[in-house]
Amino acid sequence: MHDRLTIVKVGGKVVEEEESLKAFIKDFASIAGQKILVHGGGRSATAMAEKLGVETKMVDGRRITDHEMLDVVVMVYGGLVNKNIVAQLQALNKQAIGLTGADLDCVRAVKRPVKEVDYGYAGDVTSVNTEQLEELVKNGVIPVVAPLTHDGRGQMLNTNADTMAAELARSFASTFRVSLVYCFEKKGVLENPDNDDSVIANLTSDLFSEHKESGVISDGMIPKLDNGFAALKQGVSEVYITNTEGLKNGFSSGTLLTID
Amino acid sequence: MHDRLTIVKVGGKVVEEEESLKAFIKDFASIAGQKILVHGGGRSATAMAEKLGVETKMVDGRRITDHEMLDVVVMVYGGLVNKNIVAQLQALNKQAIGLTGADLDCVRAVKRPVKEVDYGYAGDVTSVNTEQLEELVKNGVIPVVAPLTHDGRGQMLNTNADTMAAELARSFASTFRVSLVYCFEKKGVLENPDNDDSVIANLTSDLFSEHKESGVISDGMIPKLDNGFAALKQGVSEVYITNTEGLKNGFSSGTLLTID
Repeated sequence: MHDRLTIVKVGGKVVEEEESLKAFIKDFASIAGQKILVHGGGRSATAMAEKLGVETKMVDGRRITDHEMLDVVVMVYGGLVNKNIVAQLQALNKQAIGLTGADLDCVRAVKRPVKEVDYGYAGDVTSVNTEQLEELVKNGVIPVVAPLTHDGRGQMLNTNADTMAAELARSFASTFRVSLVYCFEKKGVLENPDNDDSVIANLTSDLFSEHKESGVISDGMIPKLDNGFAALKQGVSEVYITNTEGLKNGFSSGTLLTID
Repeated sequence: MHDRLTIVKVGGKVVEEEESLKAFIKDFASIAGQKILVHGGGRSATAMAEKLGVETKMVDGRRITDHEMLDVVVMVYGGLVNKNIVAQLQALNKQAIGLTGADLDCVRAVKRPVKEVDYGYAGDVTSVNTEQLEELVKNGVIPVVAPLTHDGRGQMLNTNADTMAAELARSFASTFRVSLVYCFEKKGVLENPDNDDSVIANLTSDLFSEHKESGVISDGMIPKLDNGFAALKQGVSEVYITNTEGLKNGFSSGTLLTID
């Protein structure tokens, strides 16, 4: 029987506001056993770009990472957000280490090929090197991973945090019993976006297809769930969508994904 | 006989310019054996602060780190400069990891007490936790350390990079034969600031006192040398002041510090 490894991805408003981030970190720290945290940064990079006069360009909800925007995300995700989370975990006596994909060469990517859209310095993950991460995790260290990768030729790249978490989960599935948890500001996947309590407790892949078609599930939730279902198919034991509260009750208040 | 550990601190113009940084990284990577890199960031933080409209305040050549400036140095040193160095080392097939004092709880500090001047979020080092760093170094990993510390209560702090390097060197002196190398744009400590070839090959502590008094050695070089001589007294085997060239010839073109 493999050890359990819980990989939590946190993003959205939770990381943007100091108070909610603090509450999240406390609840994350209380999760038993070995764990990895993957964080986004979302609008904090957009806000910093604005201050610097760097224009944020989006196509279909995806950021275009030009050279200047890459510097901003490396600074904000890899520096500001990452180190503040690490320092706060240390304050709770949790041994943590902040990483990007370049550190320990843990996540390599390739600059997304230009087809209809040139996404700039966006990285599509090509390989996860679990060896060094596994050693840290087994020594009780919590890796805190920023959504940044490198191409092995000296170039940093910007990678979607949901994808980063799913890639890590998938890669650890052969050595750990992996739970992948997407933590954001809602209780879970909602049947009615206007009713925060309409959580779908158990989302099967069939139900997901239905809800996607009918429009019940839309926008940013779709790639997150696509990532989640793909991870399940690749050996990840459990995938949850939940809020900070869910971290305290074993994710039982959120949405559990299952394959039919 | 202990293993050798070379701790190189790089700063000044070397890190500010892309080309000189690239040349430095190549030469640093070629140093044989176990090594740690400590980097500054200098004017890159000042330039970023300017773009963000954050005022850079200095007293006697020391930066005052208010809350906004702390965010800038955490972003620039801990994010931008640090991760670009790591990615470039990876491109040379060197296994590297970027760290601040908060990561692995490796360097703790206390916010500098307010006496005549309030330095803000400046951190005076209180302890170096070598255990985890030593394991990385012995596994062939190169720690790349940004001049940032934490107070153990969730607060990041800004620490002078020369001091950071000296503290690490001192702390490793009981487990390694440590060489501490301050690498900057000049060949070494100069007898005549206008003659780049007037390198003092061997600077004894007595000669240092003399040159300090006469004004031959002045400004930013004084705290650097104070740090270097203090490290020697605390068990560090060798301290060199050199430029990138010096990394290729075993530091023989630079200045070697010795105690009388």
